Amino acid sequence: MQASPAAKTVVIDRPFELELGGRLPALTIAYETWGDLRCGGDDAVLVIPAFSAHSHARSSTGDPGQGWWEHMIGPGAPIDSRRHLVICASLLGGCHGTSGPRSPRADTGRSWTGDFPLVTIGDLVRCHLLLLDHLGIDRLACAVGGSMGAMQSLELGLHHPERTRGVIAISGTDRTRPATAAIRHLGRKAIMNDPDFRHGRYEGSGPRAGLELAREIGTVFYRSKEEFNHRFDWSPVAEPSLGGITFDVQSYLRHQGRKAVGTFDANSYLRLSLAMDLHDVGRGRASLAELLAGNPVHYLIGGVREDRLLPVAEQREIHETLIAAGCRSSFREFTSPVGHDAFLVEQPAIEASIRDFLAAL
Amino acid sequence: MQASPAAKTVVIDRPFELELGGRLPALTIAYETWGDLRCGGDDAVLVIPAFSAHSHARSSTGDPGQGWWEHMIGPGAPIDSRRHLVICASLLGGCHGTSGPRSPRADTGRSWTGDFPLVTIGDLVRCHLLLLDHLGIDRLACAVGGSMGAMQSLELGLHHPERTRGVIAISGTDRTRPATAAIRHLGRKAIMNDPDFRHGRYEGSGPRAGLELAREIGTVFYRSKEEFNHRFDWSPVAEPSLGGITFDVQSYLRHQGRKAVGTFDANSYLRLSLAMDLHDVGRGRASLAELLAGNPVHYLIGGVREDRLLPVAEQREIHETLIAAGCRSSFREFTSPVGHDAFLVEQPAIEASIRDFLAAL
Repeated sequence: MQASPAAKTVVIDRPFELELGGRLPALTIAYETWGDLRCGGDDAVLVIPAFSAHSHARSSTGDPGQGWWEHMIGPGAPIDSRRHLVICASLLGGCHGTSGPRSPRADTGRSWTGDFPLVTIGDLVRCHLLLLDHLGIDRLACAVGGSMGAMQSLELGLHHPERTRGVIAISGTDRTRPATAAIRHLGRKAIMNDPDFRHGRYEGSGPRAGLELAREIGTVFYRSKEEFNHRFDWSPVAEPSLGGITFDVQSYLRHQGRKAVGTFDANSYLRLSLAMDLHDVGRGRASLAELLAGNPVHYLIGGVREDRLLPVAEQREIHETLIAAGCRSSFREFTSPVGHDAFLVEQPAIEASIRDFLAAL
Repeated sequence: MQASPAAKTVVIDRPFELELGGRLPALTIAYETWGDLRCGGDDAVLVIPAFSAHSHARSSTGDPGQGWWEHMIGPGAPIDSRRHLVICASLLGGCHGTSGPRSPRADTGRSWTGDFPLVTIGDLVRCHLLLLDHLGIDRLACAVGGSMGAMQSLELGLHHPERTRGVIAISGTDRTRPATAAIRHLGRKAIMNDPDFRHGRYEGSGPRAGLELAREIGTVFYRSKEEFNHRFDWSPVAEPSLGGITFDVQSYLRHQGRKAVGTFDANSYLRLSLAMDLHDVGRGRASLAELLAGNPVHYLIGGVREDRLLPVAEQREIHETLIAAGCRSSFREFTSPVGHDAFLVEQPAIEASIRDFLAAL
């Protein structure tokens, strides 16, 4: 739950106003880069983490541990660090070095915990832009993300079109639907039901059981039915019982849940989860058409047929809305038994799409 | 959580051995009937409750409250009580009058609570058959059920073909897949995570928060994405907050969750949930083909395209397996924004299928 040892931090020493109210007196941003900082500017690619990710998208000499997008970034990779300066910053409100509930408050010196303000996708994007300002990057080649990263890359392209030439948004959405909000609500409730949550003012790891369950609920939606039915035994693997493991899919879920404890702070989980539910790129505008008018960014919108969390129909709709407004957009529908999480694993079709889009930018 | 005042009870005063071990010294079965008991025998239809249902499938003079299948049963209804004696019994292991965790133990006089044995779909069906024996019904016209009721009606038709001429199984499965077991695991974990669960040895309502969450998780799968996106507001209905209601889909889920408390006992929830996960009509057989050989029952297998819990592909597969084995089976694919729960609400296509099947039996 700490920043990678490879992460640099920058402190933006002025107040940061949050969209839903509240302010942070200063902002700390933890980020990593690959490639040569001198090739910045128009060649820079901002890789934006999804919900459970962080700045460590790829290994480096400072941290040889595998990054969460190890296969996507590097010399010769789809996001080629010989051609681009690649930047990735941990998320505002998260727990990996950028300001969040575990950060110390300036006034008390103690962690914010449950008093950290609510954040929005818009806030997260403004935080990324402050980092770009610090790095002297006026305009990116591309902002790239999957899932919650795609919500941010879309937000960046639509609300700050002067800051990037391209946007890649895989398995994201422009506006969270009630069917998706229902799912995330379950995870938050699992955490807040846990008596160790203590209204967010817990010490240490806090609501372990709740966080585990939240992650298990998430996992069912992050992956596909097809994968589970192919991968796991259909018969009991042990004497049936209520407390123990009867089916091996339960072992898998428990493993995923336990991994979340120690890598995810519950207060961060809650804030980033609600930020996704509140996501609506068109908020405060008369219409999405108004927001899109004259938007010069090139978009690559992709989705996965087996996605149970953000159905590919939503991504297709984004693309169609962009095209109808005269924007430049390409759409790719992928198929993968992995489902929503497909962008995180090696998928040649997704890699080729990203490689080709960046080459043509 | 009590039996309907219209329910009659029969006590089968001999030991009942459970498939997974353990025995009940006697069995109490709570049931209701509609139509004339004298028209029993070949005209009787057994309506089998799903997970959260019970014997009160339809109102009567003894209990004018709406039944869970009010529109399906009655004079002139698809299951016509002028033509059939209609019987419905609460489930073994449940909490509506038939023996279950809240029933008193013969040895101590106190409730079984967490010591009630595990049950299987096979046990539930044998319990229904004991009721039929008591009523002097050797052979039904039809056994009808949706979801968990369909698992039981299939089990009855395949393992006890001498006891029924027809089986109607809507939105059920012959064998629970890992993808479905993963979902039910989440609900059980929500209950067992609750400190008020006390290993099942709670007093009173027990793990309220856990039971609520379990039911909320279930609700997301019982209904469809399409319904949620059509029915609920896409924008926040209140100032965003973590503890409160931000979206109206959250109010709906909370309402469903709270309804479960007071109508569902947590120990019953756990046992019936695991019974569904363990369901496999072919268990202990060399092959399903062996089980099907010469099976003379007529089957109506149906499913709903929008079902997120038991996809229609599973029901189609049951039908195809029956046909391949030379059995008589019809298949209907329904479409409904309600999803898995469609059989519980008024759906003319489902009603017509059941009416026509019974008329042709």
